[in-house]
Amino acid sequence: MTLLSSLGRASRSAPLASKLLLLGTLSGGSIVAYADANEEANKKEEHKKKKVVVLGTGWAGISFLKDLDITSYDVQVVSPQNYFAFTPLLPSVTCGTVEARSIVESVRNITKKKNGEIELWEADCFKIDHVNQKVHCRPVFKDDPEASQEFSLGYDYLIVAVGAQVNTFGTPGVLENCHFLKEVEDAQRIRRGVIDCFEKAILPGLTEEQRRRKLHFVIVGGGPTGVEFAAELHDFIIEDITKIYPSVKELVKITLIQSGDHILNTFDERISSFAEQKFTRDGIDVQTGMRVMSVTDKDITVKVKSSGELVSIPHGLILWSTGVGTRPVISDFMEQVGQGGRRAVATNEWLQVTGCENVYAVGDCASIAQRKILGDIANIFKAADADNSGTLTMEELEGVVDDIIVRYPQVELYLKSKHMRHINDLLADSEGNARKEVDIEAFKLALSEADSQMKTLPATAQVAAQQGAYLAKCFNRMEQCKELPEGPKRFRTGGHHQFRPFQYA
Amino acid sequence: MTLLSSLGRASRSAPLASKLLLLGTLSGGSIVAYADANEEANKKEEHKKKKVVVLGTGWAGISFLKDLDITSYDVQVVSPQNYFAFTPLLPSVTCGTVEARSIVESVRNITKKKNGEIELWEADCFKIDHVNQKVHCRPVFKDDPEASQEFSLGYDYLIVAVGAQVNTFGTPGVLENCHFLKEVEDAQRIRRGVIDCFEKAILPGLTEEQRRRKLHFVIVGGGPTGVEFAAELHDFIIEDITKIYPSVKELVKITLIQSGDHILNTFDERISSFAEQKFTRDGIDVQTGMRVMSVTDKDITVKVKSSGELVSIPHGLILWSTGVGTRPVISDFMEQVGQGGRRAVATNEWLQVTGCENVYAVGDCASIAQRKILGDIANIFKAADADNSGTLTMEELEGVVDDIIVRYPQVELYLKSKHMRHINDLLADSEGNARKEVDIEAFKLALSEADSQMKTLPATAQVAAQQGAYLAKCFNRMEQCKELPEGPKRFRTGGHHQFRPFQYA
Repeated sequence: MTLLSSLGRASRSAPLASKLLLLGTLSGGSIVAYADANEEANKKEEHKKKKVVVLGTGWAGISFLKDLDITSYDVQVVSPQNYFAFTPLLPSVTCGTVEARSIVESVRNITKKKNGEIELWEADCFKIDHVNQKVHCRPVFKDDPEASQEFSLGYDYLIVAVGAQVNTFGTPGVLENCHFLKEVEDAQRIRRGVIDCFEKAILPGLTEEQRRRKLHFVIVGGGPTGVEFAAELHDFIIEDITKIYPSVKELVKITLIQSGDHILNTFDERISSFAEQKFTRDGIDVQTGMRVMSVTDKDITVKVKSSGELVSIPHGLILWSTGVGTRPVISDFMEQVGQGGRRAVATNEWLQVTGCENVYAVGDCASIAQRKILGDIANIFKAADADNSGTLTMEELEGVVDDIIVRYPQVELYLKSKHMRHINDLLADSEGNARKEVDIEAFKLALSEADSQMKTLPATAQVAAQQGAYLAKCFNRMEQCKELPEGPKRFRTGGHHQFRPFQYA
Repeated sequence: MTLLSSLGRASRSAPLASKLLLLGTLSGGSIVAYADANEEANKKEEHKKKKVVVLGTGWAGISFLKDLDITSYDVQVVSPQNYFAFTPLLPSVTCGTVEARSIVESVRNITKKKNGEIELWEADCFKIDHVNQKVHCRPVFKDDPEASQEFSLGYDYLIVAVGAQVNTFGTPGVLENCHFLKEVEDAQRIRRGVIDCFEKAILPGLTEEQRRRKLHFVIVGGGPTGVEFAAELHDFIIEDITKIYPSVKELVKITLIQSGDHILNTFDERISSFAEQKFTRDGIDVQTGMRVMSVTDKDITVKVKSSGELVSIPHGLILWSTGVGTRPVISDFMEQVGQGGRRAVATNEWLQVTGCENVYAVGDCASIAQRKILGDIANIFKAADADNSGTLTMEELEGVVDDIIVRYPQVELYLKSKHMRHINDLLADSEGNARKEVDIEAFKLALSEADSQMKTLPATAQVAAQQGAYLAKCFNRMEQCKELPEGPKRFRTGGHHQFRPFQYA
């Protein structure tokens, strides 16, 4: 056994041919040699599978894993959580409208495959080493020395889907004194926290001022999370709490603090003002144009933007929901790839990290850097000008228009914004008449404002889920599309892109 | 206002008549005086209500509160938890068979009354001052200075239903390294802990020995809690876990350590051996005759009682369920009332604490000190001997037999154990013939072994719930039974007891 096992060890690092030779020499029995060689061959077969490492099991990671065909991939997942949470329902968990149990599902259940196993480790990736194609990880079990040994995983493809973290904007006291709403545990903590405020407020010996303080619920941030929480909290207090703690129901107050002029300001104005009016009717105090300066366990200090005045507001519980920040592992990775100082990893439209083709970034930790059409205009013109005449006929343009629309989705948005149906309309002369031919200057001029339609995608579950699913589709047809690329024309280098770019629907 | 309010303060301690006089003298205006007097009268009315303070909202406390008619009581409840848990289902929560949510209910919901309000404070009582009829309490919100001010409550009647705490028998390392199963949070922690063991065991880089250690689940204590947990854990592992973590299923082991010779040794022997056989078939390792000496985060050291040998067993998770211990507030109270050194507060059969008639103790923190019939035999004889003849005729005995049976339930048990139907049978002569009369010596002899049937009630939910309900019934008929006592004859002092004694059914 000692011989065989040392043999096994040796064979892992030596190439197959020399191994067989070695076996022939040492083993003294052809059967053993044959068996071992066969095993090695299987291993080789196994190793042909490309190694895919996925970081994170949020919306993006899970939808990738769910849709991925693992026949030709060896998949390893690193995530600090072994469950997936349906995050848009978190505000409802804070008040018990929805049970925490109902919005979580075991990742191992979701990623169960018929034709193999996805390995999942409950760990944090703390370093992406893209030069050596490795990620370095630390299990989440900090208090168990045996189970907190760091480990590293090599990859052929890396999917970075670690999400974002809370953004305190460096405001002092926020981390210590505020609740957040990113994880299921956060929601459960808030639920308990709200009840505690009432339990404290009815204790004997408190002044009315102290009771009012305990029952002042403050929400910082007028985005969807903050607004939904405020609404849930209001309903919870009206429908349930006042029946249970009737003696203090008059002392309850909900305040929503927003730095901008309106809540829900990334939404349509009608939605925003509907929400504001509803809140006013409900007695939720919406304070806009306020910036939070600091937070203590008792007070939150805000600056009125218009006057510069500082106001200190006593509170019982604060929810801080002001948008997303960058995880340290992502900041570090961006430094490595020359993207230092950004909030999210820049990728191309195929979700590949700029400069690292085999690293993909999806979800809240990533941001697509859309390609400007103006930078490529000369190449497009050249590729379209089939007869090399220096002008484009409408027929020549027709030959590339689909590729343009796919590659530069801002063009379609621009056409829509101008109420136009076809790119030809853009090339009409100053009197609106269709032209037969255009030169490069006219072509450039026609598209000069198209890039203004480029939009950053919001950091939402919908975007992340679509990106994960898109990426899985690409991975499932990786070989097929290498042979028969399905993407648009490469105007600069010729040929076609392997895949159509990601588009948020 | 100063005058009136100081008046208000004064009037609380002065009798009504003198108050009215005082008001007439000082107020200078009859309307004010009238209004105030009326208010005071109302207050008096209010104050006629006896103050009942209940400590604890477990089985005993809740069943008392649920059944209590609060028309004539002013009820205040002090409990560290604002919810009631259906504790017999805790082992099922550890493995997700039952959701935590399904076994808890808000105390405020349970105790909602149509004709008034029960006040509940989330606090711990840390001192019972029975001389001054006060309890001293500390809110559970330790990190909030405003909401952690100690307060005290006066009472006319005190119901002590604080339950018991975990008993480590002073074994080193138990508190730090073991799980317990008394609260809902414990069950949730165990559930997470079990999953963590599997997540740790599949991490890369562990030796097989380390993986086995993580997957060794140890239960200390072969009582109902330990046995139910072992069974739930076994089912959970077989049915769910091995599907999710198939790679390590062969390494899982469950061991149950019991200090006695059999598990479930307070139950019928058939139940005990059925459980042992079932566990053996299931591969649960039952180790009897072992005493735990110490516990660390990695190992549990046990002493084999028969040989004195010390064995160290590696573990991944330990459940410690070895019975109940005394809470500090109870130890302190027992010292005050001359019961120092006991495990539980001794009460009479009416659940009144020996020596403090207006303090009742129920549930796991209490234990009924049954009255021995032998100590009262002379008084019983005297009371029964209506014609003062020095002998009891069967007719005379008939006059007290019901009272004896109610007051000394051990007599009935003793009759049953002797397969007798009537107390007369006890008084038969040595040949088994009924006698017409007995003297005191014969009477004493006949009942001399009855007291051997006295039993301590087990520390179970059933006993606690029945005691709470019994006590509520007594409180609801307090006045009525003062007039018309419903209890058995008082053999020593004459008259009747106000209530029938508590009897566990």
